[in-house]
Amino acid sequence: SLHRIKASGLKLQLCTNETQATRENFVKKLRALGFDISVAEVTAPAPAACRLLKERGLRPHLLVHDDLVPEFAEIDKTNPNCVVLGDAAENFTYANLNEAFRLLIGMEKPVLISLGKGRYYKETDGLKLDVGAYMKALEYACDVQAEVVGKPAKTFFESALAELGVPPEQAIMIGDDIVSDVGGAQQCGMRALQVRTGKYRPSDENHPEVKPDAYVNNLAEAVDIILQQL
Amino acid sequence: SLHRIKASGLKLQLCTNETQATRENFVKKLRALGFDISVAEVTAPAPAACRLLKERGLRPHLLVHDDLVPEFAEIDKTNPNCVVLGDAAENFTYANLNEAFRLLIGMEKPVLISLGKGRYYKETDGLKLDVGAYMKALEYACDVQAEVVGKPAKTFFESALAELGVPPEQAIMIGDDIVSDVGGAQQCGMRALQVRTGKYRPSDENHPEVKPDAYVNNLAEAVDIILQQL
Repeated sequence: SLHRIKASGLKLQLCTNETQATRENFVKKLRALGFDISVAEVTAPAPAACRLLKERGLRPHLLVHDDLVPEFAEIDKTNPNCVVLGDAAENFTYANLNEAFRLLIGMEKPVLISLGKGRYYKETDGLKLDVGAYMKALEYACDVQAEVVGKPAKTFFESALAELGVPPEQAIMIGDDIVSDVGGAQQCGMRALQVRTGKYRPSDENHPEVKPDAYVNNLAEAVDIILQQL
Repeated sequence: SLHRIKASGLKLQLCTNETQATRENFVKKLRALGFDISVAEVTAPAPAACRLLKERGLRPHLLVHDDLVPEFAEIDKTNPNCVVLGDAAENFTYANLNEAFRLLIGMEKPVLISLGKGRYYKETDGLKLDVGAYMKALEYACDVQAEVVGKPAKTFFESALAELGVPPEQAIMIGDDIVSDVGGAQQCGMRALQVRTGKYRPSDENHPEVKPDAYVNNLAEAVDIILQQL
């Protein structure tokens, strides 16, 4: 399906909330699986956070996965004036959480940037708490509201559109997550299709707030429809 | 001051949110400091939780401080159907949090009982996240609301009154925490004095929701006033 999109001349951007690996490693994995994808075709929370940090002159303390740290290589991290939170997994220790908390509570106006707000996810050895749970813990302790830079944040989709160089009304999001993918893209002015695969649940079709522009059974069908309408 | 209250014939109950030690050890510490206090004179979250567990036939998975575990000695903990959360300190590991989460999310109707909802506290080596932060993390991940059994929960003050054997209108709470002590006791129908020591902050006197029945400079002054009015 990706190949057919590219062959048609349409532009393509992959939007992921992956924060346990750099885009380089994420793309390496996809290429190993046979997908013809480059790093420039991937929008992910960490680069979006880096742009935000640079724009606002913020120096982060990172509480993220070891494998994500290289994404912040060019960011000044001395004398931190904000905390960037990702899915730190094994780095979510009592000591590390207290350290991030102390930095935040010591700021006149605490700035907490979260790379996502997922509740949990499944790995081969079972369900794991996602970054959103730890975000809520720090929000409550510091009485602040985190700034979320992953999907469904508007800024995230704006970044993807900027990479594509197209206005929102000329872009279509295809995703399996009714809130993060469909809702986020629509709030940004894009149309959005929900695939009935992956995270999709029949109950999504009764979602109280988000309604996709259309449902498709899978990615291949989404591509069929889009190419027919060109 | 405690001695003067007891000598007057008034009944006394200490209400603490301590969840890092059994009442036995808590009382041992106070006695070593010269206070004439017995275990029966202490109301604490863990015994309140035990009463609730027994009443509702709940079998807890404990995520609490090692030193608190003996308080749950007589509770059936096999095949857990709820999670009891305390200030687990070093036991707040990534693995332990995921374990508690998995148990909750696997329940048809998750039951999360929290021994408090404090945001943070200070120890000699710095500020620490309190149980409330971890409660918020699990609440968000499981989409549940925890039942809080420590102060300011109404059931907590009802337990203390039951121990004393007096109705709320014949009891006075003296405390330094505007919300947990004063607000909690008043919601239970008691009168409450705030001492201008300990956690007290001048800004408490402009609290948007809670207004003590009176302010006193310290515990000794509170006892003076109470004994004068007998």
